Amino acid sequence: MARDPKYDVLFEPVKIGPKVARNRFFAVPHCNQAGSDKPGVQAAFRGMKAEGGWSVVCTEYCSIGPESDDFPHTSARLWDDGDVINLRHMTDVVHSHDALAGVQLWFGGGFAQGLESGEPQRGPSEYPNENNPQNYSHACTVAEIKEILKLYAEAAKRAEQAGFDLIDLIASDSHLPVQFLSPHFNHRTDEYGGSFENRARFWLECLEALREATGGRLVIDSRIAIDELRGPDGIELEDGLRFVELAEREGLCDAWLVKVSTYNGWGNDSGPSRFFKSHNQGWATKPVKEIAKGPVVQVGRLTSPDDMVQVIEEGEADFIGGARPSIADPYLPKKIEEGRPGDIRECIGCNVCVSRFWIGSNLACTQNATAMEEYRRGWHPEIFTEAVSPCSVLVVGAGPAGMECARVLGLRGYDVHLREAEAEIGGCVRDIMRYPGLAEWGRVITYRESQLEKLKNVEVHTGVGAMSADDVLNYGAEKVVIATGASWREDGLSGVSLAAIPGADASKPQLSTPEQIMAGKEVGDRVVVLDADGYFTGIGMAELMADAGKQVTMIVPQAQASYYTVYTLEGDNVQHMLHEKKIAVMPFHWAEAIEAGNVTTVRAFNLYREGYRIEMPTPAGRSPRKASDEVTEVECDNVILVTARRSNRALLDALEARESEWRANGIEGVYPVGDCYAPRILQLAIFDGHRLAREFDEPDARTPKPFIRERPIWGQEAMPRL
Amino acid sequence: MARDPKYDVLFEPVKIGPKVARNRFFAVPHCNQAGSDKPGVQAAFRGMKAEGGWSVVCTEYCSIGPESDDFPHTSARLWDDGDVINLRHMTDVVHSHDALAGVQLWFGGGFAQGLESGEPQRGPSEYPNENNPQNYSHACTVAEIKEILKLYAEAAKRAEQAGFDLIDLIASDSHLPVQFLSPHFNHRTDEYGGSFENRARFWLECLEALREATGGRLVIDSRIAIDELRGPDGIELEDGLRFVELAEREGLCDAWLVKVSTYNGWGNDSGPSRFFKSHNQGWATKPVKEIAKGPVVQVGRLTSPDDMVQVIEEGEADFIGGARPSIADPYLPKKIEEGRPGDIRECIGCNVCVSRFWIGSNLACTQNATAMEEYRRGWHPEIFTEAVSPCSVLVVGAGPAGMECARVLGLRGYDVHLREAEAEIGGCVRDIMRYPGLAEWGRVITYRESQLEKLKNVEVHTGVGAMSADDVLNYGAEKVVIATGASWREDGLSGVSLAAIPGADASKPQLSTPEQIMAGKEVGDRVVVLDADGYFTGIGMAELMADAGKQVTMIVPQAQASYYTVYTLEGDNVQHMLHEKKIAVMPFHWAEAIEAGNVTTVRAFNLYREGYRIEMPTPAGRSPRKASDEVTEVECDNVILVTARRSNRALLDALEARESEWRANGIEGVYPVGDCYAPRILQLAIFDGHRLAREFDEPDARTPKPFIRERPIWGQEAMPRL
Repeated sequence: MARDPKYDVLFEPVKIGPKVARNRFFAVPHCNQAGSDKPGVQAAFRGMKAEGGWSVVCTEYCSIGPESDDFPHTSARLWDDGDVINLRHMTDVVHSHDALAGVQLWFGGGFAQGLESGEPQRGPSEYPNENNPQNYSHACTVAEIKEILKLYAEAAKRAEQAGFDLIDLIASDSHLPVQFLSPHFNHRTDEYGGSFENRARFWLECLEALREATGGRLVIDSRIAIDELRGPDGIELEDGLRFVELAEREGLCDAWLVKVSTYNGWGNDSGPSRFFKSHNQGWATKPVKEIAKGPVVQVGRLTSPDDMVQVIEEGEADFIGGARPSIADPYLPKKIEEGRPGDIRECIGCNVCVSRFWIGSNLACTQNATAMEEYRRGWHPEIFTEAVSPCSVLVVGAGPAGMECARVLGLRGYDVHLREAEAEIGGCVRDIMRYPGLAEWGRVITYRESQLEKLKNVEVHTGVGAMSADDVLNYGAEKVVIATGASWREDGLSGVSLAAIPGADASKPQLSTPEQIMAGKEVGDRVVVLDADGYFTGIGMAELMADAGKQVTMIVPQAQASYYTVYTLEGDNVQHMLHEKKIAVMPFHWAEAIEAGNVTTVRAFNLYREGYRIEMPTPAGRSPRKASDEVTEVECDNVILVTARRSNRALLDALEARESEWRANGIEGVYPVGDCYAPRILQLAIFDGHRLAREFDEPDARTPKPFIRERPIWGQEAMPRL
Repeated sequence: MARDPKYDVLFEPVKIGPKVARNRFFAVPHCNQAGSDKPGVQAAFRGMKAEGGWSVVCTEYCSIGPESDDFPHTSARLWDDGDVINLRHMTDVVHSHDALAGVQLWFGGGFAQGLESGEPQRGPSEYPNENNPQNYSHACTVAEIKEILKLYAEAAKRAEQAGFDLIDLIASDSHLPVQFLSPHFNHRTDEYGGSFENRARFWLECLEALREATGGRLVIDSRIAIDELRGPDGIELEDGLRFVELAEREGLCDAWLVKVSTYNGWGNDSGPSRFFKSHNQGWATKPVKEIAKGPVVQVGRLTSPDDMVQVIEEGEADFIGGARPSIADPYLPKKIEEGRPGDIRECIGCNVCVSRFWIGSNLACTQNATAMEEYRRGWHPEIFTEAVSPCSVLVVGAGPAGMECARVLGLRGYDVHLREAEAEIGGCVRDIMRYPGLAEWGRVITYRESQLEKLKNVEVHTGVGAMSADDVLNYGAEKVVIATGASWREDGLSGVSLAAIPGADASKPQLSTPEQIMAGKEVGDRVVVLDADGYFTGIGMAELMADAGKQVTMIVPQAQASYYTVYTLEGDNVQHMLHEKKIAVMPFHWAEAIEAGNVTTVRAFNLYREGYRIEMPTPAGRSPRKASDEVTEVECDNVILVTARRSNRALLDALEARESEWRANGIEGVYPVGDCYAPRILQLAIFDGHRLAREFDEPDARTPKPFIRERPIWGQEAMPRL
């Protein structure tokens, strides 16, 4: 299909320093935890963006030497020749798709963790690491500042050796250049502190050092936090612009990658959809564009081509930057170019991708199960191998795993019937998307719905009610995928004790499950949310109830409500929300019993009350202490049980019990996917559906095929041992 | 020197299944985060224990297949031939020192994280992961149980290929075998659930499978949590013993590695010295020894040879197990054997080693700076290269970094003067060891004091007062190490705002620093501890005050008091302590001002009060909201400022300013180490002192030498690119 001419503007080439990008799509730096140590994964992941049409593709932050060490977080590195070789592989792949390769050179200063080198990190002043306040930055001497500038220059040379076209100096996210500029961090009194010009000196010298080291052959740009959003103590918009002016005056910066906020305020930049609509940084880029000679890159979870056109036409920026949109759909530009923007797999803004950075695991994406699997499993997001024998497949349940499995099976040429008991497809997401702030999560459904509609070999049957084992056996399908999902428990069992809570029974009017709430169950004025899950459901229920004017108390066993949202960058604003909506939280507490009645009482105990855990075995023997009966009685009208989920595996169990009948009914295999096998987060459930469909021809499709593990093997070449 | 005959019993050989260990020192499995992917680091680290006299040396937990995947935590793995090659290197090194090599085969069940494979983890029943309750175990079918037993058998074969002598089946720490045995996890109703015999079936079948796969050639033992310490809901001592009896009856287990507690109760097994004395598990091993035919291994931070003799002579166990003691001093057995037990570098029980597991970083040890550096930096804990030119060195300050630096310089043959202003050496540790529960941390001093005394080329001068730059310049030393440490700030500056708190001034009687408290400053009855540091100092002050009968409130910006102790396994018992000693905690709060007076008022604000952070930039522009003045006024008699430390760098700065005078005064170089360069945790400060001394001859000794990074290089052999 031809591209819609209204999107032509997005495909104009853009001059950027000594290079030309062939369109306006700029895949900005973001972490994926491949670093320089998994060259295959790194190259294939970044290369897929180039293949999908992004004309500039960047690494994540890339350390310039062991003096800036963020381990155990994974940065890329340009420390030595080995790193050059590994990143050279990435640039080769990116270049093979006619895109420019960028590297983001990084010196973290007092924000780096320093746990591989064991060395303290150097900054403008001495201050405690925001996240590990036991360790402090060292306040550099001027000689040490000069050393750091030399490290930048040396890394720039290695970057050129590695084949990069573009060097981005990270001066956002509280890293070193902005530490010098921001009076928040910079308490110096010498030529690098005090006046604005003095505080700007280091950053300008960095840009100069990079340019000098690469002799004008490479693009030198800067990622700038145009406003740290910490008020007059830090960099505000006018300060950011003043820096841009200074650098422009000296012609030191070929382009500006604009963002906002700080390292610990990251969630105000990579805004989760719970709190931020997409296209929210026009206010930040437009004034930069007004003074910059070179191009300006805007981010803000832009997935709509119409928004993108507006960015360009309103003069907000020259490039459409994308981190999360390029993860969810590396082919985003190509899909616009090919006149099929409706096929874009839009980011839902859940930030599970970012959560993996904090956890130390590989990046993963709720929408795109192939992210980071391009190399190790050989998965391409848009290319699917044809089924070896395209048999008929019945998929029971159109929740996240079932939809994804049916979609991929369909693309592979199977004859698929996707059957959903309810009137609409989507499973648990139909509820979740109605939790406050989570509307965009509905894209999990809308994307798959639109794709399924295009597949002539997939029939979607809705409102068919629950299928029995007999229904399945008699259906006539050769293979059966069970994707019946999970439900919230009605008995209060949770990980706290792995036992039901006495008195917990959501069939009573005084207690509810989240599903019952979303189905409209009436609750009174005072609600207790019992949340052991710690992610979005408990706060979803609490906020929904608070918005309905109820008085809400959350009882949670963790140190804080919704602890997992700390990793998804929602945490700070979730805490603000709880505070502003006057939702009371009882951390480190759980319910030992619930008494339902006219007034319902939750007997809440502190996990650290005497005797709850037996602390001190002695040589004389274990001393089993009775837990004290110290409790806080919380009165309410309804208790919402966000305690644990339970897989809906009755159908699976029934079919497995009748395995002997499969063959006679023409069934070759039955395959569980997603929550009915084991409840899990959406990303993992969708991944499971995808994985099964990719490997559906394998003799043992239930067991995932091995994937490539990039690791050194001891003496492999010199002294093979096996 | 000859071994003291009273320790002879420790050096008796012990038969263990088909093998014989040459003494009673058993280096038990523990994590170091090298896994199978850093074969050089792994082999050198474990090999050092063998060299130091441990007759059995084990890996950490070792995954038997991608079906049990704990990523992002690092386990060893025996998934494929590459892992076999890598671990074979470890067994070769261990064997070269005449020790047995053990591997701990692991299937985590519902406790594993599963983030490399993306697969759900299988357990006896379905339950939420204790640490990530959004993801659940899958309740295995019987067919799936048989598959897992096959995985164990296959991994056992690979273990034999890799050269291991001993296979330890981990059935402690809530991992799969104990999940089946424990009614807490096992809710099955088939032949694998219900009765004790049914619940024991899986574990026994595992042992059988391992034995069958290795044909009696290898030791098959089991690490058993003899008591889960969760009361009648789980495995209690009598249940554990009943399992031992069952396995003994069938002759399935060659040896027992006894421990106690659960995964989340790990801190009750690897007990920090804050709460546990060493030699605390006699009650757990003795009854096992009474019924086991094979040897029994006892752990419990055993570092005293007299305690060890008691373990053997009282019939508590056959082997002295050591994880932390073998990290702090791999040469522990050899030092006893050589008649110099006073040279043992005893573990202080701080559990910084374990904290690195949770953080995802390499293991590190406060006492032993060479741990994990054996391969990558080539450091041997007991062998030191002679100084190239053994000049005279003045070390100013005998805190952790200064003591360690002087010790290593002394061992290398330098002529060292270690000068301490105070009457005794030890620096900040002199205070810390007097915080409640931290007496054993004093070993940081006593070990170094005893070692320094033996070095004829090291003079220790105490009580010499502060040295000025003139003193140093005139001292006559060729090189100068500055190790003047750090002090707690008096102005309340912390990472929260990087600004002094209005009204905070510890020179006033109503406010104190931790040093002032330890020096005996009088405070009244009501004390506020303002703790931004989040580790041991804040709770140290709070507990000290509570023990003195004061009413204590902690104000902390994090979600909980002393968040870092969660990583050191102190966390749960710290929370119990706070609860039991009635120390009030205000999480997510900080002080905006302090008004000192007859009654002192701390104006505490919630970090999530309206406007404290600017959340939502809009296209219309940043909206700078004024922080609300919502505060909680906390009245007290004294405020202890645990807000941040400040390096004592006046001397360093003065000397650097007079660099031009160095040569004339015969000074070749001035080198800062430890907290005076940048404050940090003890482990990193001691590491710094050690590192400098190791590399003191280098032309640029201030900059650490590069270390070996084990990582794959893309196509290195097939297609070199540089």
